[in-house]
Amino acid sequence: MDLEDDHFHDECGVFGVFGAAEAANLTYLGLHSLQHRGQESAGIVTSNGEQLFVHRGMGLVADVFTAPVIDRLHGDRAIGHVRYSTAGSSHIKNAQPLAVDCAHGSIAVAHNGNLTNAARLRDELEDAGSIFSSDSDTEVVVHLFARSRGRSTVDRVAEALDAVEGAYSLVFMTPSELIAVRDPHGFRPLCLGKLGEAYVVASEPPAFHLIGAEYVRDIEPGEMVVFDETGMRTLRPFTDRKAKKKFCIFEYVYFARPDADFGGISVYQARKRMGRVLAELEPVKADLVVPVPDSGVAAALGFAEASGIPFELGLIRSHYVGRTFIEPQQSIRHFGVRLKLHPVRELLEGKRVAVIDDSIVRGTTSRKIVKMIREAGAKEVHVRISSPPTRWPCFYGIDTPTRDELIANRYSKEEIARFITADSLGYLTIEGLHRAVGGSGYCDACFSGHYEVANTHHEQRRQLPLVGV
Amino acid sequence: MDLEDDHFHDECGVFGVFGAAEAANLTYLGLHSLQHRGQESAGIVTSNGEQLFVHRGMGLVADVFTAPVIDRLHGDRAIGHVRYSTAGSSHIKNAQPLAVDCAHGSIAVAHNGNLTNAARLRDELEDAGSIFSSDSDTEVVVHLFARSRGRSTVDRVAEALDAVEGAYSLVFMTPSELIAVRDPHGFRPLCLGKLGEAYVVASEPPAFHLIGAEYVRDIEPGEMVVFDETGMRTLRPFTDRKAKKKFCIFEYVYFARPDADFGGISVYQARKRMGRVLAELEPVKADLVVPVPDSGVAAALGFAEASGIPFELGLIRSHYVGRTFIEPQQSIRHFGVRLKLHPVRELLEGKRVAVIDDSIVRGTTSRKIVKMIREAGAKEVHVRISSPPTRWPCFYGIDTPTRDELIANRYSKEEIARFITADSLGYLTIEGLHRAVGGSGYCDACFSGHYEVANTHHEQRRQLPLVGV
Amino acid sequence: MDLEDDHFHDECGVFGVFGAAEAANLTYLGLHSLQHRGQESAGIVTSNGEQLFVHRGMGLVADVFTAPVIDRLHGDRAIGHVRYSTAGSSHIKNAQPLAVDCAHGSIAVAHNGNLTNAARLRDELEDAGSIFSSDSDTEVVVHLFARSRGRSTVDRVAEALDAVEGAYSLVFMTPSELIAVRDPHGFRPLCLGKLGEAYVVASEPPAFHLIGAEYVRDIEPGEMVVFDETGMRTLRPFTDRKAKKKFCIFEYVYFARPDADFGGISVYQARKRMGRVLAELEPVKADLVVPVPDSGVAAALGFAEASGIPFELGLIRSHYVGRTFIEPQQSIRHFGVRLKLHPVRELLEGKRVAVIDDSIVRGTTSRKIVKMIREAGAKEVHVRISSPPTRWPCFYGIDTPTRDELIANRYSKEEIARFITADSLGYLTIEGLHRAVGGSGYCDACFSGHYEVANTHHEQRRQLPLVGV
Amino acid sequence: MDLEDDHFHDECGVFGVFGAAEAANLTYLGLHSLQHRGQESAGIVTSNGEQLFVHRGMGLVADVFTAPVIDRLHGDRAIGHVRYSTAGSSHIKNAQPLAVDCAHGSIAVAHNGNLTNAARLRDELEDAGSIFSSDSDTEVVVHLFARSRGRSTVDRVAEALDAVEGAYSLVFMTPSELIAVRDPHGFRPLCLGKLGEAYVVASEPPAFHLIGAEYVRDIEPGEMVVFDETGMRTLRPFTDRKAKKKFCIFEYVYFARPDADFGGISVYQARKRMGRVLAELEPVKADLVVPVPDSGVAAALGFAEASGIPFELGLIRSHYVGRTFIEPQQSIRHFGVRLKLHPVRELLEGKRVAVIDDSIVRGTTSRKIVKMIREAGAKEVHVRISSPPTRWPCFYGIDTPTRDELIANRYSKEEIARFITADSLGYLTIEGLHRAVGGSGYCDACFSGHYEVANTHHEQRRQLPLVGV
Repeated sequence: MDLEDDHFHDECGVFGVFGAAEAANLTYLGLHSLQHRGQESAGIVTSNGEQLFVHRGMGLVADVFTAPVIDRLHGDRAIGHVRYSTAGSSHIKNAQPLAVDCAHGSIAVAHNGNLTNAARLRDELEDAGSIFSSDSDTEVVVHLFARSRGRSTVDRVAEALDAVEGAYSLVFMTPSELIAVRDPHGFRPLCLGKLGEAYVVASEPPAFHLIGAEYVRDIEPGEMVVFDETGMRTLRPFTDRKAKKKFCIFEYVYFARPDADFGGISVYQARKRMGRVLAELEPVKADLVVPVPDSGVAAALGFAEASGIPFELGLIRSHYVGRTFIEPQQSIRHFGVRLKLHPVRELLEGKRVAVIDDSIVRGTTSRKIVKMIREAGAKEVHVRISSPPTRWPCFYGIDTPTRDELIANRYSKEEIARFITADSLGYLTIEGLHRAVGGSGYCDACFSGHYEVANTHHEQRRQLPLVGV
Repeated sequence: MDLEDDHFHDECGVFGVFGAAEAANLTYLGLHSLQHRGQESAGIVTSNGEQLFVHRGMGLVADVFTAPVIDRLHGDRAIGHVRYSTAGSSHIKNAQPLAVDCAHGSIAVAHNGNLTNAARLRDELEDAGSIFSSDSDTEVVVHLFARSRGRSTVDRVAEALDAVEGAYSLVFMTPSELIAVRDPHGFRPLCLGKLGEAYVVASEPPAFHLIGAEYVRDIEPGEMVVFDETGMRTLRPFTDRKAKKKFCIFEYVYFARPDADFGGISVYQARKRMGRVLAELEPVKADLVVPVPDSGVAAALGFAEASGIPFELGLIRSHYVGRTFIEPQQSIRHFGVRLKLHPVRELLEGKRVAVIDDSIVRGTTSRKIVKMIREAGAKEVHVRISSPPTRWPCFYGIDTPTRDELIANRYSKEEIARFITADSLGYLTIEGLHRAVGGSGYCDACFSGHYEVANTHHEQRRQLPLVGV
Repeated sequence: MDLEDDHFHDECGVFGVFGAAEAANLTYLGLHSLQHRGQESAGIVTSNGEQLFVHRGMGLVADVFTAPVIDRLHGDRAIGHVRYSTAGSSHIKNAQPLAVDCAHGSIAVAHNGNLTNAARLRDELEDAGSIFSSDSDTEVVVHLFARSRGRSTVDRVAEALDAVEGAYSLVFMTPSELIAVRDPHGFRPLCLGKLGEAYVVASEPPAFHLIGAEYVRDIEPGEMVVFDETGMRTLRPFTDRKAKKKFCIFEYVYFARPDADFGGISVYQARKRMGRVLAELEPVKADLVVPVPDSGVAAALGFAEASGIPFELGLIRSHYVGRTFIEPQQSIRHFGVRLKLHPVRELLEGKRVAVIDDSIVRGTTSRKIVKMIREAGAKEVHVRISSPPTRWPCFYGIDTPTRDELIANRYSKEEIARFITADSLGYLTIEGLHRAVGGSGYCDACFSGHYEVANTHHEQRRQLPLVGV
Repeated sequence: MDLEDDHFHDECGVFGVFGAAEAANLTYLGLHSLQHRGQESAGIVTSNGEQLFVHRGMGLVADVFTAPVIDRLHGDRAIGHVRYSTAGSSHIKNAQPLAVDCAHGSIAVAHNGNLTNAARLRDELEDAGSIFSSDSDTEVVVHLFARSRGRSTVDRVAEALDAVEGAYSLVFMTPSELIAVRDPHGFRPLCLGKLGEAYVVASEPPAFHLIGAEYVRDIEPGEMVVFDETGMRTLRPFTDRKAKKKFCIFEYVYFARPDADFGGISVYQARKRMGRVLAELEPVKADLVVPVPDSGVAAALGFAEASGIPFELGLIRSHYVGRTFIEPQQSIRHFGVRLKLHPVRELLEGKRVAVIDDSIVRGTTSRKIVKMIREAGAKEVHVRISSPPTRWPCFYGIDTPTRDELIANRYSKEEIARFITADSLGYLTIEGLHRAVGGSGYCDACFSGHYEVANTHHEQRRQLPLVGV
């Protein structure tokens, strides 16, 4: 259930196109397709081969860009970015793509991920005289690029990335080149497409489908793809060639769109299989299988198929929930959840209900949902979660609560069931999740605590940064 | 498929509350629950027992009302309205509730429905010296009220309504009274609820659930319910006591929320039964049953259950489609549909797909959907519609195209199948629809052409009305 | 000094054009020229000969109208309106032109003035079945028109106006005709102009100058000018042919633009003469004559010339004062005045200053100005007012405080001088004002209490009207 | 005449306050007082002693700042900035104060002026690895600060400023210190004030008056004033101690508010003396002296006094001209000027008019004004300019057209008179201007071409910078 206040949040989506008329407009549409990866700010940088043109703003893609703005974003190549962020750093200064002038000319970059050694690098760069205008990791990469003595853009990007650790799917653009690169572990997705003669890159394949482009393949962990006037070429610039692939398994659980696929594995089908395995590991006696929409639907279909219990859309999702809503002064029970989900009483009344959700973060939303279903007449409410307990924070680009706030970090399954007032609670196991998704080379640190790259994210910066209001 | 440009549109939702603190805020929430019935304008009128307070605006409920506006809407009683309208009369002057001063004091009214003799009454009223500030039928009712010599508000409302014909679920408010009334045929819904000591009325029961109120019953065709300081009383003011109940069956097919029920019949369950009957009447050899979300989901579940063909969410609906969208200059195939629906290729590829939708209006959207599914790899696309062919316009409060634009009015089933490029097409029969819904006393004029009340809607007004721009 | 919170306010400006391409745009410019007469709402109604097109909104002309709106206001004839209003009735429902459909077709009207028998007429009309959507007097006129049995538009307008009393300069428009009419006393201005073959009417001649039109003459008290396809004709429809001309003398004192003239008398020159007469009647020993800008400038020039005391712009007016301003929590002395006026210390320091303003309403603003000048170093501050004490409210279209709030109604000149902390205070006499303006036939009721038309404005309406929020 | 499209533009105003409750609000008011120095963007940075809080936006001060924003700008010290800019670089990225994090912590800076060696320094900094996010000179200063090895904030600011050349009045703020500094020539103004125990700095003294602060003195050329917890101290950090004072004489001619004074010389009085000297050097036979408001008023008063010709406000300035205005398709003569200035026909008709303006840039506006006055009936129009011909561009913080666009650079006085269709034209001489202002140490390069600091402004940057759209 993606209630804004109680879920993991992806930090962004990136897009790039090289060699297409209407590059700005295609990027606008591509970002629209990636809107679920970030609703806080959006930005596009285009190039006409000589100069970069930039527009960024707070809000949804459709609000940030108007037709006159798109018209002023000249050129046949573009990169774009959508961003989610926690309240503290929600500010225009952190909107991307970041674009600056430096000794090597203008450069722009859009970033999905999180650098684990950004704080240390930032301190070092500041000591060397750099100034920082944002809170974002990405500015570190740009500074490293600017200071690089590499002889080509490619050399300079490679040199900059050799210094950083952590997760990144990056799209760079100079007036003449577009470069897409994925960290050696491939934590975050990045895909390659083709639109006629033009090349396209995006966080997820559905961005290609909207604009009529064709999905070619995932960009590989540690791969750098360079587009320029001579065409496309692919490089392996990283010195650490032994890095293991560690693709974020939570993309399959929740982040990615169900119509996406990565590495030949369909997100929708993976979710269905999670439901099937869940039904096998945590069977339930119930009259109905009801998903928490929209993220729980595919898993619930799998659960229903495997268990033979009928699937029903017993919770309806509202289409009209905006950002701000006037709350009544008198308390309405479960108000926030009620605005977003509506129980179908006629289905639930007197029934034993198996509710399928993708994850439990703090537990407060699950508790409201269970209570709402029970008030709608359900006799029993059994919660089944299509992923393992989330016990650990993510340092690779996902916005998670602190460990203390993660209910599964502090309480047993039975205690959580009591807290959310469920008659029973079942999770998928880590092994079950891997089995459901299939393939290999996944990061499951949020479930297992096995971090591939040391986390230095919590290191305190030596000073309080400036605050945009 | 509720693409804005190719579907029937309901013309409104109404709400009222009497005797509750925060009446304005409850109405705001109630209107939010009814937002699917009208997204063009919204309005609330409150009363503190002495005076009416009015606010109306163009747009969604959450945009029209801000906290300071809600604060200025004083009193413990309120009525509200959401409205859809075609482009021509989309203007603030037609936003409701309508509120005026007249000899009997201030009165406000919110209307769902359409009067079939409004043009004639308007001409008569103008001849008697009345002026009209809007295009809406509702202003006719207010003039009749103002001119009534009835001795009480109830008498005046009854006298006014005796003169009008057609469909109306109306909520009136004077400083001291709130009156809810439904036309003798009960074309449009209107329900009664209770919130502690306060009374609530609304077009659909889910509006009660959001605010924690209890659904009591439907207000009956021809019933007038009066709320004032002495409590609630119910009247049967209409002289024509032989009117047959004619509740709009399309509320079950499409308009109402799936979590609503009317007369003890659940909308969700009725839709599932439509799918079941459809599977029986128009069987198909297919690998998957795929609904056009969101309106086709329940019918598709019924179809899948009855046919034994697996149900899959093969089309994903976007949550981020706003009102305006910048279209690319170069044509992207099926652009409008692509923005709103995304095919899950991994499900559809190589499959025989049974697509379930609730209705076909002009056929152009269905055609785009079929083509999009086929481009996503489907081997066969079979379209099944959970209602009969819509061949006739509605004169009772639904915004429909002209007869000529209704594809089912001009073409056979086979011709329509060819137009939408489907391998086969099947509709529910009228009899099958009635069987699926159950009960009796429905208006099915849009399918059958059997109009209970003569249509004078097409009568040309004798002059061109003024135009808001 | 036209501080918004402490001055008389004119209630509107009207404009009309007949027979010109770009009628909407010309009206937009004309209203811009009349913006000083009303900053609260603006509206334009156009006609293409068959139908009326309407747009109204709250705010300044340049905010209410955008290029796309102007483009949708079709036709070669138009009327427009700008409006000021007190807080209570500041609402879109009162924005003008008022436009309705009635038995005689569509009609729109823009009104400057105030009807003294509107409350009674409204009660009578309501008793006859009329409904009222606004608080404005103008709606009464439209109802009378709609109910008229007159055979032509002219007859109906004449019949309607025969029933009303008070002040009105009105511009009516039907699809085919435009009618400008001034009440028999001619309280409020209305002028006739010519733009090539097209006719123009406006509250003040500068509206003609902006659009390149030529000022022809004032429309006379009791005159009705009709424009239609056959050209222009002028009528004298009123039965009361003995009405005395009573043009508002305060238009010369303050309301009208200095570059306007009425009846051959230049507003600028009249103000200069007020200053001259004032210097003669209330001489002062001073080193400087300083106007309160902008309204006091011309009078101050006249005062300086007549007295031989040097004129200096010792108070500078800010160009950047918007509607809303964040006030500091800690009190800044004379904050409101400081935002709008800035003393030139170098001029004022150690000087005896004669400050010239056009009027004193409540005295609070004058007090702040005097104190501010003294704090800037002035040794003496002598206030001279270029009009007589304003002791009486206006019932003819000016928004004035109640009698109790008018300082000159309750206190002597000496007491007022003490209140505003001036070393001396001098007013023009009523006789002096008439002498300065020249000509005859003026209403000076706000100074003299001699009301030509009985005031029934204070009559309580029998009920509380509805309130827009 | 300050028509936006045809005048010199000042590039900014700066403000700072240290040690006052409501620092953000006082800065907001101070910026309002300086609004005439820049209407394009506004910004405030505050400090609570530990952290900086930043808000910037495009537009007027009153639009950029709302009460909730002011509330989030915590602390008892603040700096602020208003900015004008030419179209090309009109973008949020150039809004000030600039605020960054660097090795020395957070620092913010607000700048009025222009650095003549910025392009070279920027290239050098980029070569050393710096990245630039804006076009502004100011970012160069911040980079120099960040790279300084100085041991204190003061040392680092001094080191940074030793490298730059040109014009600057700067206000820096770190969490704990506020520093105001003026370049050794003192091209641009900067003043010191006191508000109770708090210190205030501002571009012009009227900013002090609005907030109730006291003007203490001008900060001297080459002076650095430091405010911290220990109070205020003043330093002379520059190594070039022989710099000559070169205060911009155009501040007296046009930029500064008439109620400002610098170095004991009142702007208003200086303008009056310009008028007096002009009357002596370029006498005219005329019936009226008419200023082009508002900037020409004081000079016109001086001209009238010296010449004995009556002063009249023959041109009225509109208060309601916003940024955007819908132009009519059919040409209205002198449209732009007509919107802003209105001739008083009754004054001008048949008269010989001496029109006083402060300067002529391209000549196009003057031409429109002369024609408009003549069309209003003037017999002769004699133009007198209260400054010498502007023949040279400014490199010290004023936005001027290129030399080729300056009419006085290419044409003789007689040719200009013909172009603007004046019967005669007279300018002040350079000597006359100096005499009128009095004192010494002025930069008059825009008149004389005597540049004190070499201009490298025209140096082409080696690459096209990125463009915000």
